[in-house]
Amino acid sequence: MKALRIAVVSYGNIGRFAVEAVRAAPDMELAGVVRRSAALPPQEAQELAGIPVVTDVGALGKVDVALLCGPTRSIPDTAPQYLARGIHTVDSFDIHGEQLWQLRSGLDAVGKQHGSVAVVSAGWDPGSDSLLRTLLLAMAPKGLTYTNFGPGMSMGHSVCAKSKPGVKDALSMTIPTGTGVHRRMVYVELAPGADLAQVTAAIKADEYFAHDDTRVFAVPSVDELKDMGHGVLMERKGVSGATHNQLFEFRMTINNPALTSQIMVSCARAAALRLAPGAYTLPEIAPMDLLPGDRGTLIKELV
Amino acid sequence: MKALRIAVVSYGNIGRFAVEAVRAAPDMELAGVVRRSAALPPQEAQELAGIPVVTDVGALGKVDVALLCGPTRSIPDTAPQYLARGIHTVDSFDIHGEQLWQLRSGLDAVGKQHGSVAVVSAGWDPGSDSLLRTLLLAMAPKGLTYTNFGPGMSMGHSVCAKSKPGVKDALSMTIPTGTGVHRRMVYVELAPGADLAQVTAAIKADEYFAHDDTRVFAVPSVDELKDMGHGVLMERKGVSGATHNQLFEFRMTINNPALTSQIMVSCARAAALRLAPGAYTLPEIAPMDLLPGDRGTLIKELV
Repeated sequence: MKALRIAVVSYGNIGRFAVEAVRAAPDMELAGVVRRSAALPPQEAQELAGIPVVTDVGALGKVDVALLCGPTRSIPDTAPQYLARGIHTVDSFDIHGEQLWQLRSGLDAVGKQHGSVAVVSAGWDPGSDSLLRTLLLAMAPKGLTYTNFGPGMSMGHSVCAKSKPGVKDALSMTIPTGTGVHRRMVYVELAPGADLAQVTAAIKADEYFAHDDTRVFAVPSVDELKDMGHGVLMERKGVSGATHNQLFEFRMTINNPALTSQIMVSCARAAALRLAPGAYTLPEIAPMDLLPGDRGTLIKELV
Repeated sequence: MKALRIAVVSYGNIGRFAVEAVRAAPDMELAGVVRRSAALPPQEAQELAGIPVVTDVGALGKVDVALLCGPTRSIPDTAPQYLARGIHTVDSFDIHGEQLWQLRSGLDAVGKQHGSVAVVSAGWDPGSDSLLRTLLLAMAPKGLTYTNFGPGMSMGHSVCAKSKPGVKDALSMTIPTGTGVHRRMVYVELAPGADLAQVTAAIKADEYFAHDDTRVFAVPSVDELKDMGHGVLMERKGVSGATHNQLFEFRMTINNPALTSQIMVSCARAAALRLAPGAYTLPEIAPMDLLPGDRGTLIKELV
């Protein structure tokens, strides 16, 4: 079997872990990294020693799948460029609801036109959590599911808090308080002369924080608080047929970018080997299509 | 949308709950029940009042899917008869490993020949647990998964214990003791003159029990102990990419036949509406294919 050739597009948090996950995959090889600039800062240069770093994927030769590791808002523009070249894409677009559906519908059309596959929102939420929510609904169609996040750092909320005037750096922790309700614990490093009360008011007024119990604290160094661990507790209590009180609980404690990039890598396999052209979210993919290896062996071991 | 017409084949424990689950499904109608004999004992006659009960599925008119609710060992003979008539089948065949793979391979050929779909081993283990084990492997490819069962009644072990000379009735409880190791607590109702020590020796010597810590107790009435609740705790500790100590845990506490039959009903939908002819186990099916409703709405709500 020929190894799948994978390009990692954008080398930030997720991209760094994606490189590791591609290298750990028995059936893949890293074609290279695509960045806006091939000139690397010293740390990146050391990490990527021996790996082709280019500004255009065309320079990497044959590429089967591009893992799009840039910011969520870049995905709707970036993905079609790869799909149009016949390169499958996997992203971890993380805005739920209408925007996600628009992205999936748009890329579905592009993929079908060019014979390529897009796996959309291939992280853990949206992603593996979505698959689990779907499965639980099939197991107990009536009832309530609560997804509780954390404790863990929310990238989106941290970026939002950092954008407020007077904030040098910020970290927003998501703290689960049960039944899908969360507290936001926000740690800010203030710029000289900035006022904590004003910063707090600005953060609490933002749509990102307005609906949650939000507490803001000034700290001397945000960097010293950073930890990429995160967690989920998903609970469903529901009805199977006519039988009530069926109870389900899924819990995980994980390194956030490591899990996201591993799921992307597993989805690259489905995109390249199993799925028909078009776009898919995680619950639209048969989980066995995510694994390497012979189907008979997998079924005998896992089913 | 026309309702899917579903036949429930065999009216025991699972069949009874399958009838309830079909009736609760918004997109299905119960075509009828297929039994060896249409003459029903009084309780069954009352439960099935107004529902066609037949000995041949042909008497039910158009049937889209047959839910095969008979004993596991009957499935390899029963399923092909339905598939050959163009009726999709769903079973909950519960022997893992080689036999399961043989069944899936055999029905795959029959289904492809006759344009019908078989969903094999559509219960919770094998079934939804299998899907989850597969997903966890995609999320953290290296590591260990432990599936702990119970506390709950094991049908197979109970039947085995009951088959021993001197045993009038038996119930075998599966008790999890961690890391996938189980204790068997066996409650037997002895026949007059039977010797508990002999019965215990016979049970412990059986292959079903020989590898587990097995304890046998005589009780005046096994019937008074019967409770269909069961449980699972699945644990995985593994590596995503190069990042160790990713922790996952799935726990459920459920009515056993109610969950099994609900999963069968959800799979009937995938068989009738989504899957190409052939045979599938749960991890080979995209979870969203198990749900009724419009894909866009589902993706916006669940992903």
